[in-house]
Amino acid sequence: MIASKQLDRSRGTNYYDRVMRYYEHVVKDDITIAVAQTDVKGDRMLRPHQQEDPDLYVHIVGRESDGIIVRGAKVHTTQSIAANELIVLPYRNMVKEDADYAVAFATPVNAKGIILIPRPLREVEINMLGDEFPMGKTNVEVETLTIFDNVKVPNDRVFLAGEYDFAAPYGLTFALYHRFTAISYRAALADIILGYAKLFAEYNDVETASHIRRDIVDIITYKEYLVSSAIASAEKCIKDPNTGICIPNPIYTNVGKLTANAKYLDAVKDMIDVAGGLLADIPSTSELSNPTEERYMVKYLAGKRGTDPRVRIRLFQVAREFLSALGALLSVGMIHAEGSIEASVIELYRSYNYDISKTAALYNADLAKIDDVKKLLEWW
Amino acid sequence: MIASKQLDRSRGTNYYDRVMRYYEHVVKDDITIAVAQTDVKGDRMLRPHQQEDPDLYVHIVGRESDGIIVRGAKVHTTQSIAANELIVLPYRNMVKEDADYAVAFATPVNAKGIILIPRPLREVEINMLGDEFPMGKTNVEVETLTIFDNVKVPNDRVFLAGEYDFAAPYGLTFALYHRFTAISYRAALADIILGYAKLFAEYNDVETASHIRRDIVDIITYKEYLVSSAIASAEKCIKDPNTGICIPNPIYTNVGKLTANAKYLDAVKDMIDVAGGLLADIPSTSELSNPTEERYMVKYLAGKRGTDPRVRIRLFQVAREFLSALGALLSVGMIHAEGSIEASVIELYRSYNYDISKTAALYNADLAKIDDVKKLLEWW
Amino acid sequence: MIASKQLDRSRGTNYYDRVMRYYEHVVKDDITIAVAQTDVKGDRMLRPHQQEDPDLYVHIVGRESDGIIVRGAKVHTTQSIAANELIVLPYRNMVKEDADYAVAFATPVNAKGIILIPRPLREVEINMLGDEFPMGKTNVEVETLTIFDNVKVPNDRVFLAGEYDFAAPYGLTFALYHRFTAISYRAALADIILGYAKLFAEYNDVETASHIRRDIVDIITYKEYLVSSAIASAEKCIKDPNTGICIPNPIYTNVGKLTANAKYLDAVKDMIDVAGGLLADIPSTSELSNPTEERYMVKYLAGKRGTDPRVRIRLFQVAREFLSALGALLSVGMIHAEGSIEASVIELYRSYNYDISKTAALYNADLAKIDDVKKLLEWW
Amino acid sequence: MIASKQLDRSRGTNYYDRVMRYYEHVVKDDITIAVAQTDVKGDRMLRPHQQEDPDLYVHIVGRESDGIIVRGAKVHTTQSIAANELIVLPYRNMVKEDADYAVAFATPVNAKGIILIPRPLREVEINMLGDEFPMGKTNVEVETLTIFDNVKVPNDRVFLAGEYDFAAPYGLTFALYHRFTAISYRAALADIILGYAKLFAEYNDVETASHIRRDIVDIITYKEYLVSSAIASAEKCIKDPNTGICIPNPIYTNVGKLTANAKYLDAVKDMIDVAGGLLADIPSTSELSNPTEERYMVKYLAGKRGTDPRVRIRLFQVAREFLSALGALLSVGMIHAEGSIEASVIELYRSYNYDISKTAALYNADLAKIDDVKKLLEWW
Repeated sequence: MIASKQLDRSRGTNYYDRVMRYYEHVVKDDITIAVAQTDVKGDRMLRPHQQEDPDLYVHIVGRESDGIIVRGAKVHTTQSIAANELIVLPYRNMVKEDADYAVAFATPVNAKGIILIPRPLREVEINMLGDEFPMGKTNVEVETLTIFDNVKVPNDRVFLAGEYDFAAPYGLTFALYHRFTAISYRAALADIILGYAKLFAEYNDVETASHIRRDIVDIITYKEYLVSSAIASAEKCIKDPNTGICIPNPIYTNVGKLTANAKYLDAVKDMIDVAGGLLADIPSTSELSNPTEERYMVKYLAGKRGTDPRVRIRLFQVAREFLSALGALLSVGMIHAEGSIEASVIELYRSYNYDISKTAALYNADLAKIDDVKKLLEWW
Repeated sequence: MIASKQLDRSRGTNYYDRVMRYYEHVVKDDITIAVAQTDVKGDRMLRPHQQEDPDLYVHIVGRESDGIIVRGAKVHTTQSIAANELIVLPYRNMVKEDADYAVAFATPVNAKGIILIPRPLREVEINMLGDEFPMGKTNVEVETLTIFDNVKVPNDRVFLAGEYDFAAPYGLTFALYHRFTAISYRAALADIILGYAKLFAEYNDVETASHIRRDIVDIITYKEYLVSSAIASAEKCIKDPNTGICIPNPIYTNVGKLTANAKYLDAVKDMIDVAGGLLADIPSTSELSNPTEERYMVKYLAGKRGTDPRVRIRLFQVAREFLSALGALLSVGMIHAEGSIEASVIELYRSYNYDISKTAALYNADLAKIDDVKKLLEWW
Repeated sequence: MIASKQLDRSRGTNYYDRVMRYYEHVVKDDITIAVAQTDVKGDRMLRPHQQEDPDLYVHIVGRESDGIIVRGAKVHTTQSIAANELIVLPYRNMVKEDADYAVAFATPVNAKGIILIPRPLREVEINMLGDEFPMGKTNVEVETLTIFDNVKVPNDRVFLAGEYDFAAPYGLTFALYHRFTAISYRAALADIILGYAKLFAEYNDVETASHIRRDIVDIITYKEYLVSSAIASAEKCIKDPNTGICIPNPIYTNVGKLTANAKYLDAVKDMIDVAGGLLADIPSTSELSNPTEERYMVKYLAGKRGTDPRVRIRLFQVAREFLSALGALLSVGMIHAEGSIEASVIELYRSYNYDISKTAALYNADLAKIDDVKKLLEWW
Repeated sequence: MIASKQLDRSRGTNYYDRVMRYYEHVVKDDITIAVAQTDVKGDRMLRPHQQEDPDLYVHIVGRESDGIIVRGAKVHTTQSIAANELIVLPYRNMVKEDADYAVAFATPVNAKGIILIPRPLREVEINMLGDEFPMGKTNVEVETLTIFDNVKVPNDRVFLAGEYDFAAPYGLTFALYHRFTAISYRAALADIILGYAKLFAEYNDVETASHIRRDIVDIITYKEYLVSSAIASAEKCIKDPNTGICIPNPIYTNVGKLTANAKYLDAVKDMIDVAGGLLADIPSTSELSNPTEERYMVKYLAGKRGTDPRVRIRLFQVAREFLSALGALLSVGMIHAEGSIEASVIELYRSYNYDISKTAALYNADLAKIDDVKKLLEWW
């Protein structure tokens, strides 16, 4: 809404009305949506129009009176297999030669020409291998390689079609909200890691060890930093003057997102440090159905007096799976999903307002006056 | 106010009224106050009453009808030399044998028996050595070793006198507000470091180098984390039920404080990395008064085309002093002031509510129900 | 050999001869050995003899004329299922009340009363789920929970039996060699991570990006630190005066080991940062057997011009599995195997010779003479 | 010697003989040498010949029958004021247009046209301000801005004069030895920091606190990593085939150097964390000459029972100065001296041989054979 309104104001187009009609359709018909934004990108050093194969970014390959034809592929499309429709957005800024790549639209997932190739669901398949992994049963998302093989999109579902200088605003506006989502849901993920760590500390009876305490506080710090940046992003949001929609504060969002990505494996490391080596070598819970093995496991995998060895065994097994197939997915996702570390670095560097900082330093060097600093602080 | 109210409710004492009368005195008479909390502590492994010399924590050595006599010494008393009065608070939790050490009071700085021994003011003295350091001229605080050599405190200025189980609430309540101050003023300090870094990047013409960009974004991240934790602490503050006073949210305050301490020297390192070796080896600006040297310095210490070498030289010199005498003070202060890293670790570990985290982990292991998690989230 | 010789010299026992006879048996009969050292430990805050169940550390439960009877369980016994015999060593230092737990011996794996319960082999089982994981086919170790249910050990295979003050030397001597092994094999593991990262940088064509370069150099640094500490440990080894056997230098070994543990996930993070999100979402290579999917995958998962998309797909898939089931094992192993981080911290802190450092600091404070420093440096 | 021999072999010049004659002069006449390598560099994004002022890198401005005339300025010339002669080396790689900047030579420091402008010696001047700083009295180096204002250099002292493609070998060969020096002397510097930390832990009686132990072990790790990389660099040195001179192993040297730079302030932070806030606020030792103040200071600045408060006070004061003026110099020096962090990153990235790593990864993906790996390991 925000970006299409800007575009309409600048070019006299009428994309915003299309967006609003689509919005009403989504609300009224209770449509489930997946967003396809990341192109497959081919050679990363080349722009869309420079790629050897022109289809490595989704682009318009035909324009007809009642719509456009698009070709290309997106990756990392979360939950496309469970969605009714896809919203497709441009991935990056574009130059004039990329105009056909500046395209945004909505389409039913079952439109002709759309093919979904999913990643393997190891976190689900684990349950087939003997051990049970409850988290893998009901809480799984799936990402697809999403191919658009000459897909027709009717005009009223086309939200951008060639206005290359608006590819970046369309892409970045979504990215900012997406990053705000990230600092929110990742706090919940951190809660699980924190919960495991605290439970292992209790079951192993190592709560009084200072290095264990520090591990746990590191996870708390990771989690609560995400929470506090989310609160600050929301409280200090910016109202879009054209639409009245609130935009998450981009500084707190990006700073939170950057830390969320860069420090995730540190939180994992802390949890592993607390858990101990049994996290790797816990025998399968399926062994518990053999009475002899069960007897030995319950006897020898006991922890702190008064705790239940069966619970301890199960916690170790589930936490191991959390690090295993799901862990591979999470580790990569936490570092790349909603934008890479470098993407946040570049955006922060470019968009940051350095006036106060520079004037404060100059004031310290007696090259600016304190009133110069105060004036800059007024807007805050 | 908060702690004395609690104490009165628990013991039927009337400290709160004394506090409020003192508060009115401060407001009405426009009194400048310094707070003396950190005792000299002697052997850190021993409690107050276990010390070889009983005076290593401030304590009551005499009780008279109209007041108490105190002896001992506090350190790190900021701005005592510029204050009218001192508020003295207990530093740590106490046990029964420490009862005489559980003491809080206010006193004029010029009361009989108070002796102040300040730290040296190197950041001021630099100006005596040839180079000018504007920041050292007007923006300096001084800390003292503050000795109480049998100081008499009249009853109406005594706010705690022996109620040892309230030493911790008195100390921690102040510490929490003090830490909230810390995450606020340190953001401003980080602004100066950020300003130097950005200016050096511009004057050296290295803004396009990716590692320079990352250095600068690291400083931004440091600063904005403090800001976002301060915003979250304020927005999610807790209202004291007895007094109606707002208490900064202890989780966001402590998490912000912990990061402020632990990462300060990383921000300094980033700034040094951007600045380059001239930050160490810049000749004295006093050499500029010699025309021959001035000519060579202006010619050879030029940076990016279009920038003024004299400004560049001055920025290097001031930033060097910022790292020098003032830097030693700041480095130690940023790691220890308003409580050490370990103090925040211990407080967070103890006070954190792990219920949601543990239940989330147990839910993942199918050992709790999703409703158990939801119920815990309701209060939030 | 080293520890038993020390014991014999101190007590007049004859364990060393038994060790040497066992050594000759191993060499002559080409015996494959696994080492069982880590006890299950129960409540970590309690010593062996304090545990509720006395069997939570392996101990002597009977002494007969021709041997001893042992009971208890060890964990993390690598390759026990593929070994002919086990060497069993004490895990920790012991006090007088722990005397029956001070036991070291060798035994055939198939001795009566030994039960092995392995961890699940997810990294092998992946091959059953469609994708191929070559590394999981041939390069897999397995760890077991190793139970000793009243196992008889003949006298000539008993190397320690009650001399509780020698439990620590037996355990630590093995641990030191084991840590030296760790810094050696982990460099090879780091090579694989480095290889993936460099290949992804090439296939994605991101080699010129500065943050990618820094990621790769971080992995190089991790690897080569391990190599240089291994070289220094070997070159500056210490010759045992009693046996003439070379002991790896404990300082360089422990410092290398500490870093190997603490920084492993940083190297993994670097590799993930280089690879990009496809590391999580690469479709299964089993899809390549479907011609339609193969066509789309080869077209859309192309990288840098001139590279083979099939190789790129395979590298992503194998690297994903490297992070998955094997990754969970490796992450935990790299943090805990051959001793935890805290174990190395404690050992370094205790065993380090601080004389030179302290004298150097005192010299700087004019509280020692330069000759005091020089004298201490002579032995080096 | 190494680089000039290469140059002579490639071009038929006779620089090596000049180098050897100079070497004999240095040995015979017991000459003290300083090395001037870092140019002032002006705009960092521009090559020497692109600078607005052509003198921002030292260059040849005249060629006469018996020698050359040079102009420009170097910075960071350590100990030039105490040296007999300067060796001047090129700072960076050069292209054809930079030919006049490809110059290396030796010259007496008192040659006509050489002007030295030193940095201020704050670490010495501290002694003028009341407190004594023994380290600043006798152990100080001084760096200068070293100006060459049309300096004549006779032919037999010219070692490079226009062969621009040899500017890099001349510069890098010195840099490599210089970095080897760095990992050696910095270990000694780390010893001082370690000594302070251990002494503070003892005087404060906090040795049993786990976080203090970890701080100290972090400093040990920093120091011993430098030592082990120096040992590995020396043991695995490379013999130059032309001269027979041993070259420090560039991998271990650069990896050690990179860590030395990047982690120095972490070691400082650890020491500060152990010391406590008195490191900032210790009163001047000059106060000890006042009997009243001395009595209070000795009484109230006491530490662990049995330790001498006067020693404790002095250690705090000297360590504070170590962080102060000297600390600013050291912090910058440790991050930039002997080459910046990014310089080592770039050199390692470019010069590293990735064959083994890549083949190991390909072997894991079943895209190479184990024999391919083994063959590559043979050279090692």
